[in-house]
Amino acid sequence: MASSTPLLVDELDIVIPTIRNLDFLEMWRPFFQPYHLIIVQDGDPSKVIKVPEGFDYELYNRNDINKILGPKASCISFKDSACRCFGYMVSKKKYIFTIDDDCFVAKDPSGKDINALQQHIKNLLCPSTPLFFNTLYDPFAEGADFVRGYPFSLREGVPTAVSHGLWLNIPDYDAPTQLVKPRERNTRYVEAVLTIPKGTLFPMCGMNLAFDRELIGPAMYFGLMGDGQPIGRYDDMWAGWCTKVICDHLGLGIKTGLPYIWHSKASNPFVNLKKEYNGIFWQEEIIPFFQASTLPKDCTTVQKCYIELSKQVKEKLGKVDPYFVKLADAMVTWIEAWDELNPAKGSAKLANGLAK
Amino acid sequence: MASSTPLLVDELDIVIPTIRNLDFLEMWRPFFQPYHLIIVQDGDPSKVIKVPEGFDYELYNRNDINKILGPKASCISFKDSACRCFGYMVSKKKYIFTIDDDCFVAKDPSGKDINALQQHIKNLLCPSTPLFFNTLYDPFAEGADFVRGYPFSLREGVPTAVSHGLWLNIPDYDAPTQLVKPRERNTRYVEAVLTIPKGTLFPMCGMNLAFDRELIGPAMYFGLMGDGQPIGRYDDMWAGWCTKVICDHLGLGIKTGLPYIWHSKASNPFVNLKKEYNGIFWQEEIIPFFQASTLPKDCTTVQKCYIELSKQVKEKLGKVDPYFVKLADAMVTWIEAWDELNPAKGSAKLANGLAK
Repeated sequence: MASSTPLLVDELDIVIPTIRNLDFLEMWRPFFQPYHLIIVQDGDPSKVIKVPEGFDYELYNRNDINKILGPKASCISFKDSACRCFGYMVSKKKYIFTIDDDCFVAKDPSGKDINALQQHIKNLLCPSTPLFFNTLYDPFAEGADFVRGYPFSLREGVPTAVSHGLWLNIPDYDAPTQLVKPRERNTRYVEAVLTIPKGTLFPMCGMNLAFDRELIGPAMYFGLMGDGQPIGRYDDMWAGWCTKVICDHLGLGIKTGLPYIWHSKASNPFVNLKKEYNGIFWQEEIIPFFQASTLPKDCTTVQKCYIELSKQVKEKLGKVDPYFVKLADAMVTWIEAWDELNPAKGSAKLANGLAK
Repeated sequence: MASSTPLLVDELDIVIPTIRNLDFLEMWRPFFQPYHLIIVQDGDPSKVIKVPEGFDYELYNRNDINKILGPKASCISFKDSACRCFGYMVSKKKYIFTIDDDCFVAKDPSGKDINALQQHIKNLLCPSTPLFFNTLYDPFAEGADFVRGYPFSLREGVPTAVSHGLWLNIPDYDAPTQLVKPRERNTRYVEAVLTIPKGTLFPMCGMNLAFDRELIGPAMYFGLMGDGQPIGRYDDMWAGWCTKVICDHLGLGIKTGLPYIWHSKASNPFVNLKKEYNGIFWQEEIIPFFQASTLPKDCTTVQKCYIELSKQVKEKLGKVDPYFVKLADAMVTWIEAWDELNPAKGSAKLANGLAK
């Protein structure tokens, strides 16, 4: 794979949630410019966001979201980067890469700029191995393979739905850890990609994330956060827990590890604590809920899985706090909106056929 | 932790199975000399194995094993490195480190010699986190922690029973992979230690392995391999599968990753294929067996778990091949021999008390 040839140019959108001018794109220009950007502008829609010259993009502010989704716009968060999932919904591409606007190009140990997007694409195009652990990490990486004792019947792997990348410099810590370790920086470059095993949950961070929209898109709902909600900074976590349960059920894989981006700025831990406060309690109930959750066999599509999960959320987590009843309803609204904007390919073809 | 102070000198034995003079110890001298060695001599007991000057060791050949275990010596393999588990049994220490005699000191990316034993000890003394995946790998490593979204109730972790180290240069491949990729070398130094999640099996290699004898010792039986057996090179795999199931049941952790050793010599793939042949078929049945195996609540000690597992092996895998009936019986013999050589501390104290 030549590092100079951009891959999947016509099949991938880059989704960026933002409230500011996108100067950070300058540093990414060599890697991102061939791709189409979907910018989701959060906050005041009258503000003009400047995008550097030469990028191909579409931009949606709150007014656009309201216009496109109508009453269903209620499922898209406001004043929270959770609004990014609107970009997943309006994309027409097979793959999504999403990145925060405070993330810059990191360097590998040899000092070379890391093309994060290219590594995500590699991860997505290679199978995952969730059913058995390979001690030399990604068996599909160059110079690696399955080790002795790895069952041959499992070596084909399963399709990869999600590639979760990591962060050098500012680690993705919660507010309490930020408060306790204000000066901690991540300097450890771990040259590995690995599959999160089946049945194991993980904390999915939305800062540097890629996924296959066709395989898992409708599960990538970032929930109700921010303005008017009792919780923030759990948008990506929520999406990650739902996505992992559904991937495990559907036989899809999730990888984590490379690529790294350079996370430049720690957010304010006091502000974060206020946002996270409820989540810190609730996650003690949410994690066991997702660990115990099973989906019936007739849930054969992501949408069906997600609707089923929303019912379980309402029934089980609704007891923890009324917020989860609202969230469960929003999950249903999200799927309705998704299906409206993304009519099933079969029916689209049929409609086409009828039109002729 | 100063790199110059050897840790747990009086609490750890190094177990080495061998058929040759132990010249490889010269390279390990700075790291191993403070420790006691248990050398298990395989093959012809009349051969004299030379151990470099200055090492503190005890050596057992087949005659010694037969003398110590009597008829129970039948559970210890002959002409196979599986014989190493005899060393685990006769040790009186809390921790074991076992290493093959074709494994040398590797260098980290900065060119520094890796003190593999010290890293294993670090791994064993820090908790494991099998219940939820931490994307920044070992949260107890220097400069790392639990990331946002990691439940606080799980951050204490669980005691670590096993530390599985890796290999630079010659990777631990099976015969078919060796045949297909004769020149592949592992040059990727991945600076990570991670916990194998609960419910996930992995291929445990015995080349570079440490464990807590008190927590998991009786599960570290390397099975019936080599002379007179229809299978070889599955000794460590067998121990790993049994150990993982029991650790999951008892709430203990298994880590893999650092430290690396330098594996110098690929074994002959044609000879290996002959040894592995049956295992390649059988593992397709063995893996689902262990994945589905559950232990009853009253199995509260490693011994009880292991005896229960031996029953399940006889019942379920006995149908695959009569070899597993023999193996299941050997598993019971192993536990009987273990208990004979390692009387329970309580009863030892009682005996002591009575003697006074």
